[in-house]
Amino acid sequence: EMGDLLEAIQPEQRRALVSLLGDEFDLAALTEVDEAIRLDIVEHLPNEQIAAAIGEMESDDAVYILEDLDQEDRDEILSKLPFTERIRLRRSLDYPESTAGRRMRSEFVAVPPFWTIGQTIDYMREDEDLPDSFTEIFVIDPTFRLVGVVDLDRVLRSKRDTKVETVMRQTSHPIPALMDQEEAAQLFEQYDLLSAAVVDENGRLVGVLTIDDVVDVIQEEAEEDLMRLGGVGDEELSDTVFETSRSRVPWLLVNLLTASFAAWVISFFEATIEEIVALAILMPMVAGMGGNAGSQTMTVTVRALATRNLDIHNAWRVVRREAGVGLLNGVLCGTLIGCVAGLWFHDANIGGIIATAMLINMMAAALAGIMIPLLLDRVGADPAVSSTVFVTAVTDTTGFFSFLGLATWWFAIH
Amino acid sequence: EMGDLLEAIQPEQRRALVSLLGDEFDLAALTEVDEAIRLDIVEHLPNEQIAAAIGEMESDDAVYILEDLDQEDRDEILSKLPFTERIRLRRSLDYPESTAGRRMRSEFVAVPPFWTIGQTIDYMREDEDLPDSFTEIFVIDPTFRLVGVVDLDRVLRSKRDTKVETVMRQTSHPIPALMDQEEAAQLFEQYDLLSAAVVDENGRLVGVLTIDDVVDVIQEEAEEDLMRLGGVGDEELSDTVFETSRSRVPWLLVNLLTASFAAWVISFFEATIEEIVALAILMPMVAGMGGNAGSQTMTVTVRALATRNLDIHNAWRVVRREAGVGLLNGVLCGTLIGCVAGLWFHDANIGGIIATAMLINMMAAALAGIMIPLLLDRVGADPAVSSTVFVTAVTDTTGFFSFLGLATWWFAIH
Ligand SMILES: [Mg+2]
Ligand SMILES: [Mg+2]
Ligand SMILES: [Mg+2]
Ligand SMILES: [Mg+2]
Ligand SMILES: [Mg+2]
Ligand SMILES: [Mg+2]
Ligand SMILES: [Mg+2]
Ligand SMILES: [Mg+2]
Ligand SMILES: [Mg+2]
Ligand SMILES: [Mg+2]
Ligand SMILES: [Mg+2]
Ligand SMILES: [Mg+2]
Ligand SMILES: [Mg+2]
Repeated sequence: EMGDLLEAIQPEQRRALVSLLGDEFDLAALTEVDEAIRLDIVEHLPNEQIAAAIGEMESDDAVYILEDLDQEDRDEILSKLPFTERIRLRRSLDYPESTAGRRMRSEFVAVPPFWTIGQTIDYMREDEDLPDSFTEIFVIDPTFRLVGVVDLDRVLRSKRDTKVETVMRQTSHPIPALMDQEEAAQLFEQYDLLSAAVVDENGRLVGVLTIDDVVDVIQEEAEEDLMRLGGVGDEELSDTVFETSRSRVPWLLVNLLTASFAAWVISFFEATIEEIVALAILMPMVAGMGGNAGSQTMTVTVRALATRNLDIHNAWRVVRREAGVGLLNGVLCGTLIGCVAGLWFHDANIGGIIATAMLINMMAAALAGIMIPLLLDRVGADPAVSSTVFVTAVTDTTGFFSFLGLATWWFAIH
Repeated sequence: EMGDLLEAIQPEQRRALVSLLGDEFDLAALTEVDEAIRLDIVEHLPNEQIAAAIGEMESDDAVYILEDLDQEDRDEILSKLPFTERIRLRRSLDYPESTAGRRMRSEFVAVPPFWTIGQTIDYMREDEDLPDSFTEIFVIDPTFRLVGVVDLDRVLRSKRDTKVETVMRQTSHPIPALMDQEEAAQLFEQYDLLSAAVVDENGRLVGVLTIDDVVDVIQEEAEEDLMRLGGVGDEELSDTVFETSRSRVPWLLVNLLTASFAAWVISFFEATIEEIVALAILMPMVAGMGGNAGSQTMTVTVRALATRNLDIHNAWRVVRREAGVGLLNGVLCGTLIGCVAGLWFHDANIGGIIATAMLINMMAAALAGIMIPLLLDRVGADPAVSSTVFVTAVTDTTGFFSFLGLATWWFAIH
């Protein structure tokens, strides 16, 4: 496909290909490529050609391309479009990013409730200005308020003289234009929708959100969480070394800070380590295993928050479960590592100390892994973005402090 | 919704509610709940009731419930169903898990190419045995081979005497029944499909895969990758402490093993650490920062492999980019930590050593972060499942070895 081709080739070849194709180039292919590539191509096309292509596109694809342009280019392109197109696109663009209003298509089929199925079919056969494809017909009152929906298979299975209002179903899920796209996608999933009416603050039909675009939203949101948990921002495979480095460095610096804090904690036990070097050898295990256990709990929690499976009703139960898992796995891993370390260094004291420290850190990991994302979510922050840093900080610090602290105390009294 | 309600309440209340509702209980709600809950409810329902409910369901939902039952219950339920239903469900169940054939719906509308639009509409008005809702009509030859598709809006916009074959479009993407569901989902995304014909080895139409079920597949697959990277298996929020612990322990034990290996590496430098305790204080930073950088690269790589954005054509370019990013970020973080450590311990040697070790480990992290998932993918393993363990093993070992090794060598010659 054109989109894949454009992503595969070099920037110069890309521009050459596009200018070679000229008016033959289908700008709709741009909705399938990386943002960086889209911008690069669009910036090298004359605004006249973009305007002509935009006029042919469905409004949601047009908005997808227009939203990334700078104000000036966007205004020039819009000014070349017919009045109704322009108004339609402006309205979508006026809705904030990541809302249903920004993602909706403004072309739809709407009829009054008193029409018959026959009238409706004739209207669809004759009107040229209908969207390229659609799966339902909206029923509206004279003020454009949504009163119902008729699925196409319903239309086909009804007799011509049936009134539309007798076969329409209630739209149980009209989507407010200002609803976040992630929330709208949840509704699609939950109710297996193919499309949904988008309404403004007054309940007037302004567009339709379709499943193919919702699929893109679902992918985007899942990708976002995966990337954030891995400490990566909005990068794309086509980014350069410098762009990639610049987007990843901030997270590394934050981690450098928390790692320095952990080092500072260790430095308090310099004297103990000098005496018993085995502690230096073993301490990364205590911190690392806590990190692993914490990341397990955190991953489950972030995902459950994203899918709305975890909420105020079951939070307490899940916190208790995670604490239980932390205790159980802590006892298990602690006992195991305790025996191994005790035998390795021929010292039961060290075995006992590392076992206890491991248990403490696994419990801390479990609690941090669930409480930190929950708290971030509660204060309105995205738990995927910063949970990893905080959880690691807790497990590193607790790991080093509990192990070295316990050892210092134990060997001081013995 | 019933599904959410079932997930929210206690097991005893759940069974009580279901038996209270009796025949009123809609088994279709079970397709929306956790697997554990589904099994629990189904096992407490009489097979007669399940069979009656299955008979009413669309075949894909029926399969979704049947596939988790044991052989005996499944056979008993199937034997209570009418012949055609039974054959249909058995065929789906015979396809392996996670294939298009297992996820498809076997009910569809199919007509011969020589019918007129009028005949087709009349058939749809009269036939009782059609699926509840559909968005397209398949066109087949007498041997059930697929010859085309007509979208419903096309039917509505055509005159009654038009021949079906003149308005049908080619199905560019019939899905082989044995295709992996993840691959099928990619096709839906790429071509914005609402549904796709599923065909057997002989090109005969056996079912239809619809977007609402593909959305579930996309969610499942994205969730799978996120969970695997976080070291979590197929657990669900409703699992008990013991179930959860048992599913998480294996990954912890593997990590315990790699952490022990790292500890063993440290133990070679016991003498050096005894002499310069600052090394023990600083070494977790070198390992940890490598781990962070490695997890950034690995996350991007695993995601790009899952979305098929990374393949043989651009792998080399992305490897070079990651190496470049590793070098750049290594120089940056190395310099920073070198200055801080040098000032902290009033020793330029230590600053230089940690800076160099950090650079080495960041480069190793970048290469491990991209090469390990690529190799796993190449040998047919799921890169999301085991990349984290291997990458951490590399960054821990390289971090400790390069830092302590460099220090031992440097202070030995000075
Ligand atoms: Mg248009
Ligand atoms: Mg965009
Ligand atoms: Mg969002
Ligand atoms: Mg669904
Ligand atoms: Mg669209
Ligand atoms: Mg699209
Ligand atoms: Mg999100
Ligand atoms: Mg299942
Ligand atoms: Mg799979
Ligand atoms: Mg798409
Ligand atoms: Mg279905
Ligand atoms: Mg479903
Ligand atoms: Mg996968």
